[in-house]
Amino acid sequence: MGDVKAGAVDGAVGGAVVKRQKRMPRAVREQQMLDAAVRIFGQRGYRAASMDEIAEVAGVSKPLVYLYLNSKEELFTACIRREAAALVAAVRDGVSGGGPADRQLWAGLRAFFAHTAEKPDAWVVLHNQARTQGEPFAAEVAVMREEIVAFVTSLIAEAAREAHRKPELAEREVAGLAQALVGAAESLAGWANGDASVSAKGAAATLMNFAWAGLGELMEGRRWVP
Amino acid sequence: MGDVKAGAVDGAVGGAVVKRQKRMPRAVREQQMLDAAVRIFGQRGYRAASMDEIAEVAGVSKPLVYLYLNSKEELFTACIRREAAALVAAVRDGVSGGGPADRQLWAGLRAFFAHTAEKPDAWVVLHNQARTQGEPFAAEVAVMREEIVAFVTSLIAEAAREAHRKPELAEREVAGLAQALVGAAESLAGWANGDASVSAKGAAATLMNFAWAGLGELMEGRRWVP
Repeated sequence: MGDVKAGAVDGAVGGAVVKRQKRMPRAVREQQMLDAAVRIFGQRGYRAASMDEIAEVAGVSKPLVYLYLNSKEELFTACIRREAAALVAAVRDGVSGGGPADRQLWAGLRAFFAHTAEKPDAWVVLHNQARTQGEPFAAEVAVMREEIVAFVTSLIAEAAREAHRKPELAEREVAGLAQALVGAAESLAGWANGDASVSAKGAAATLMNFAWAGLGELMEGRRWVP
Repeated sequence: MGDVKAGAVDGAVGGAVVKRQKRMPRAVREQQMLDAAVRIFGQRGYRAASMDEIAEVAGVSKPLVYLYLNSKEELFTACIRREAAALVAAVRDGVSGGGPADRQLWAGLRAFFAHTAEKPDAWVVLHNQARTQGEPFAAEVAVMREEIVAFVTSLIAEAAREAHRKPELAEREVAGLAQALVGAAESLAGWANGDASVSAKGAAATLMNFAWAGLGELMEGRRWVP
């Protein structure tokens, strides 16, 4: 949660609000509204969230929210799009360093779990709220998920090419492995955010061990070591 | 889809319906209604599904559906409960043979993917429809999911105890591994059902390789062999 938002929340009480509203460019104010909306949607759920509370947390008037974002539905869609793009960007940035396949996967998982732990409301909006409110929201998240699966698929395929003299992992199996990995990560993110004793790094390590070393190796006490 | 349902659907056209309705015990007729409802909910979605079509497919009158199941919401809830129980039972049955940990996991995965492939409408109801229609349906599925995660957790913990002289997998890590495995299986079930070229056994083998051998081992060309 950036400085901009904190400033807006503070500004909601006190006479400086109007002055500050006038000074801020529309793009900045829209981001404040989205910050507030993600928080309220994540905590209250889509249906229970009120536009009054979102406007209050954003430190703006409700008519201004409607002027900028049109409707609760469009505001929610804008939240999904922004948070989906941010999550995809975080994972891509995490992996951008390159290196051997296990390092890249570890970096990607670290980035994913750090991002979902840092923005638990955004993760709830993406993974729970958007998917449990039917269309058109579920379709928005499906697009993001496909993008992440495609990205992970290319990562695994590249790693397999590096590792093999002859390619042994069929294209379809690589796609299946990517689906498994993404599903496992989604499941663990919800679990980690619901349990304060599980750190983002711990969740990433659990999945890395599961995915890289395999359960069979784990049972024998052999773990993946970064 | 059992004989009872097929009979009911056939009976929907033709004069024998009323006679057959009178002869059947309530429990049997309720199962017919649920069979029809799972199919229609799975294919049309909760909102678009009509009680008229469900009654028609079940081969009964609409008032009879309301008499037995009260409302569309209660009918949907009954579908979720029945299909959740059936899925949990299928996985438990699959694993009931015992044996070494990898064999049990393989048997459980085979059972899971065979069941979700055999009942694609039921899987859509559980995994997509129920979760995307908000409460109270999402909570019903969450109960089933917790049960499956608890079952998988106990399976992994037991396997770890068997394999280790000293226990190396902490309780929390075992819970995390179970979450990862269940999330991966959910993700793969949707993927397999959406691609006719992926068999239930193929999906189970992909996850088994991923989970048991680990990606690192796979990259080296080492696979888990049943």
